[in-house]
Amino acid sequence: MVATASGVRTVSAQSLRDVVAEMFARVGMPAADAGFMGHCLVDADLRAVHSHGTRYAVSYVRNIQKGAWNPRPVIRIARDKAAIAVIDGDRGAGHVVSRYAMSLAIDRAKMYGTSTVSVRNSTHCGALAFYTQMAADAGCIGFASTTAGRLMAPWGGVDRIIALNPLSWAAPTDKPWSVDLDMATSIIAGSKLGLSIERGEKIPLGWALDEHGNPTDDPAAAQKGTLLPVGGPKGYGMSVCLDFLSGVLSGATFGRGLGGPGAGHIFQATDIQAFQPLSEFRRNMGALVDQIKQSTPAPGSSGIFLPGEIEWNNKVARQARGIPMTAGVMDEIERVATEVGVTARLVDI
Amino acid sequence: MVATASGVRTVSAQSLRDVVAEMFARVGMPAADAGFMGHCLVDADLRAVHSHGTRYAVSYVRNIQKGAWNPRPVIRIARDKAAIAVIDGDRGAGHVVSRYAMSLAIDRAKMYGTSTVSVRNSTHCGALAFYTQMAADAGCIGFASTTAGRLMAPWGGVDRIIALNPLSWAAPTDKPWSVDLDMATSIIAGSKLGLSIERGEKIPLGWALDEHGNPTDDPAAAQKGTLLPVGGPKGYGMSVCLDFLSGVLSGATFGRGLGGPGAGHIFQATDIQAFQPLSEFRRNMGALVDQIKQSTPAPGSSGIFLPGEIEWNNKVARQARGIPMTAGVMDEIERVATEVGVTARLVDI
Repeated sequence: MVATASGVRTVSAQSLRDVVAEMFARVGMPAADAGFMGHCLVDADLRAVHSHGTRYAVSYVRNIQKGAWNPRPVIRIARDKAAIAVIDGDRGAGHVVSRYAMSLAIDRAKMYGTSTVSVRNSTHCGALAFYTQMAADAGCIGFASTTAGRLMAPWGGVDRIIALNPLSWAAPTDKPWSVDLDMATSIIAGSKLGLSIERGEKIPLGWALDEHGNPTDDPAAAQKGTLLPVGGPKGYGMSVCLDFLSGVLSGATFGRGLGGPGAGHIFQATDIQAFQPLSEFRRNMGALVDQIKQSTPAPGSSGIFLPGEIEWNNKVARQARGIPMTAGVMDEIERVATEVGVTARLVDI
Repeated sequence: MVATASGVRTVSAQSLRDVVAEMFARVGMPAADAGFMGHCLVDADLRAVHSHGTRYAVSYVRNIQKGAWNPRPVIRIARDKAAIAVIDGDRGAGHVVSRYAMSLAIDRAKMYGTSTVSVRNSTHCGALAFYTQMAADAGCIGFASTTAGRLMAPWGGVDRIIALNPLSWAAPTDKPWSVDLDMATSIIAGSKLGLSIERGEKIPLGWALDEHGNPTDDPAAAQKGTLLPVGGPKGYGMSVCLDFLSGVLSGATFGRGLGGPGAGHIFQATDIQAFQPLSEFRRNMGALVDQIKQSTPAPGSSGIFLPGEIEWNNKVARQARGIPMTAGVMDEIERVATEVGVTARLVDI
């Protein structure tokens, strides 16, 4: 174990995948699903989307150990009609359930041109960009959303009954990367408050309200209150729409029911070849990307990037040189891995 | 003609519909399409979404007179496969083309469960909420987006190559109104700058950048510069995704090509009955709406409303008591109506 002074350990992606996969296998997941969990969580770390990466692995393992997550779900199609399906996730890992659902959406899109697959009785599914990327890789435009934590109030209210419901869209280009947007409908992620408290920092006014609905720069007061939606009423409105797309349509929980068991998701795939030759779409996407990237930079600009481009750059660099991870997160994974009998080992670089 | 001191004329909705419809008929639209234009534009005014209402009627008429818009388009299905279609709008009024496209999306959704209809060679289609409301009225979840004016820069850049591309989602409830979100991906509408210039007012910092990419409170400098996206990189990313959904997928213009002829749109309908009984969905949507509206109000809150609810309230009130309209807009409509030989008359209330 090599912890640097700054509390960062740089580990090889493959070793992190192996350790995480074996952890899930040791607590009862079939080997293929456990391997996928390692792949999917490390993919987020490779893209530097650590908020959805292996830092969750230990809590997921605990969820399986205490019976909240089913390590061997019987994922089934609860309703089925041509270009749509409703999936019951049997409380399996949201990642495994969501991969199944987006695969089905892609298959149906290839048959019918477009598809909408709704998921209920699932759990936390990680970064949505993973699933929309699956669609883009298959020559489709992908869309995904999920119910999430109730940390916002409706616009004009103070109660926590609106979730940070994120959305993702992706489309292939003629570059090695897809345009892939993945964003929450709040201004900041909920985890930022905890970080600011740990560091003894204030937060900017405009991120959150206290429990009485007043603006606050105190992250502890914000934790008792609510996060503000992006763009005020616009983010609030989007969150409500994503709630009915993910929660109500699937027959999952919604509104005040969110945060309990039984997450809902929605996955859509639209087959580009039904509309035009895929090569033509890729070429036009490439032209759009080039036009945008060739814009004159603004004063102080650190460059112009498309959604998903920075994450791709991170992935290429980290695949070659290892992933800089918070040492505490890696230490905890090693501790729990040993506890459940994992034989694979993290390789520090 | 009754112009009040404040420059407002309150006119009956039916008389405004009749005058606008006859204007479009006089410049060559078939009677049914002209009638629909009156209905669709006055619907926006009834909902107090004047930015997409009859204030556009005169410029649309001029577009027809100068040949930019085709009053008798042959709208055709250019590509067709099960749950998808690509519509060529033959440069018809975007409203007429979009009604056709969303009707087709609803029909296909009833057959296949969900549908995506892509539109190219269209023109300005007005308020997207009109079309998603069509879907909600038919027991579907509706989604719509369109290419729009290039008034934003990419995040980190200064060139105007990103459009304000709006989006709309709607779903039915157990109330007389649907939840119906309709929002641009910019913080403010482009028309706000012109209004501020007319009134000699500054704009708040944070709405726009000048042509060099610096923040400005001068609306004239902002008109030469760019509007800022809602939520910074989030609004920028959404705008790019809506550009590939509306512009690239349909084979319409996109990126720097926007603002020229040939607008692109996308319409999606998802049939709720394929997922669950519509009555169950409506009941759950009603519960979600009630939970949200029963939230404790924030200090200074003017009430808690769902997307589309305020617009519905406006519509009910204005249908009964007339629509307060800018007198100058009504005077101009009367002038041009007379010019093209309209016999219907506005009725002031």
